[in-house]
Amino acid sequence: MAKNDDVKVLGAWPSPFVMRARIALNLKSIDYEFLEETIGSKSQLLLQSNPVHKKVPVLIHGDKPICESLIIVQYIDEVWTSAPSILPSDPYDRAIQRFWAAYVDDKLFASMRQIKSLEGEEKKAMVEQATEGIVLLEEAFEKCSKGKPFFGGDRIGYLDIAFGSILGWLRATEKMGEVKLLDEAKTPRLVKWAGRFCADGAVKDCMPETDKLIELAKVLMAKMKGAPPKQ
Amino acid sequence: MAKNDDVKVLGAWPSPFVMRARIALNLKSIDYEFLEETIGSKSQLLLQSNPVHKKVPVLIHGDKPICESLIIVQYIDEVWTSAPSILPSDPYDRAIQRFWAAYVDDKLFASMRQIKSLEGEEKKAMVEQATEGIVLLEEAFEKCSKGKPFFGGDRIGYLDIAFGSILGWLRATEKMGEVKLLDEAKTPRLVKWAGRFCADGAVKDCMPETDKLIELAKVLMAKMKGAPPKQ
Repeated sequence: MAKNDDVKVLGAWPSPFVMRARIALNLKSIDYEFLEETIGSKSQLLLQSNPVHKKVPVLIHGDKPICESLIIVQYIDEVWTSAPSILPSDPYDRAIQRFWAAYVDDKLFASMRQIKSLEGEEKKAMVEQATEGIVLLEEAFEKCSKGKPFFGGDRIGYLDIAFGSILGWLRATEKMGEVKLLDEAKTPRLVKWAGRFCADGAVKDCMPETDKLIELAKVLMAKMKGAPPKQ
Repeated sequence: MAKNDDVKVLGAWPSPFVMRARIALNLKSIDYEFLEETIGSKSQLLLQSNPVHKKVPVLIHGDKPICESLIIVQYIDEVWTSAPSILPSDPYDRAIQRFWAAYVDDKLFASMRQIKSLEGEEKKAMVEQATEGIVLLEEAFEKCSKGKPFFGGDRIGYLDIAFGSILGWLRATEKMGEVKLLDEAKTPRLVKWAGRFCADGAVKDCMPETDKLIELAKVLMAKMKGAPPKQ
């Protein structure tokens, strides 16, 4: 096992994917150095550590770079085995959590991120699509958690990290788009779960504030339109 | 451990993703029942076993459905542990193979599948993109295999399955598009690796014939254009 001070995370504060690596390290009580990338540019270390995708997060363990957030979480779980596991021990439970984690990335986050720039019928359809996804995750929560507080049972696990990491952007999307995605009526368990997740000691210091995300989103959206940001 | 006769694969012969589940079961010497879906329709069992994506492959182990090809391969590796491992034992090696397996799906296969329906400059650009991806995999092969015959070392492993399963469609794409993707000059190690992979006892009976894939592709492309297939 490498010394704790050999661990670095190349990241950026608004990235839900970066947050996954940080939460996993926090859960394992591993100290790490957080190297913040400047939004809009890429450091030499990033280009060299992730030459294929040139994207954060990269976990650098000793001299080894590991890329792709869910692969990093699994790596952390497999390297630091003295702390409780992030993935469940049962192969079927692992498969189920991997399935829903992939669903969060490929379907839910993909539709959610479009909402804030859409209008009218297109926006309505995308909100419906995202809401349906969240309702599916509410059902998955019931099966995975087995009455306990997290998808992972008594503690934050793999799917908690995968889904929980997008909660900052989910809230920003709700506020910017004036829509409700996590809903007391439709997804009561997930509303409570989200509160627990964000308050957890492994999470709270790396979950970005909703208003800061909104501010950033406005700047980026204005940049894409070639106009200065609205006040 | 469930009895071997409790294992079913819902699949379709031309699917590289279905092939992954079959190769993994073959490597573990697990007998299974192959339930062939009719192309263009979805059985009740499929809709019930994979209600979210409604796609093959589904592995049904006892009464438990497992979806998504790479998740299935990992499940098989974690359940049947008496046969040699499919994933490497070292966490870093596992992360590297997971990284490239995701690359095969998200980048390489995604660009490769477009080639046969493109023409002119668009086709040229897509062939270049796919070729660059394969050159990256040639470099990855050198690092992963460490001089041995497979990405997984002496035996077919996780990345062999992920990449190898698209070789049938790669060959069909080369023939239909009159292009060269696996190339003796640019990717000499992968040319030899592909030969070894396809000849392996765990693979050869489920690797579809190139001409059968081409025939199917022509029918599907003609259907999309609303015209009868060319003779």
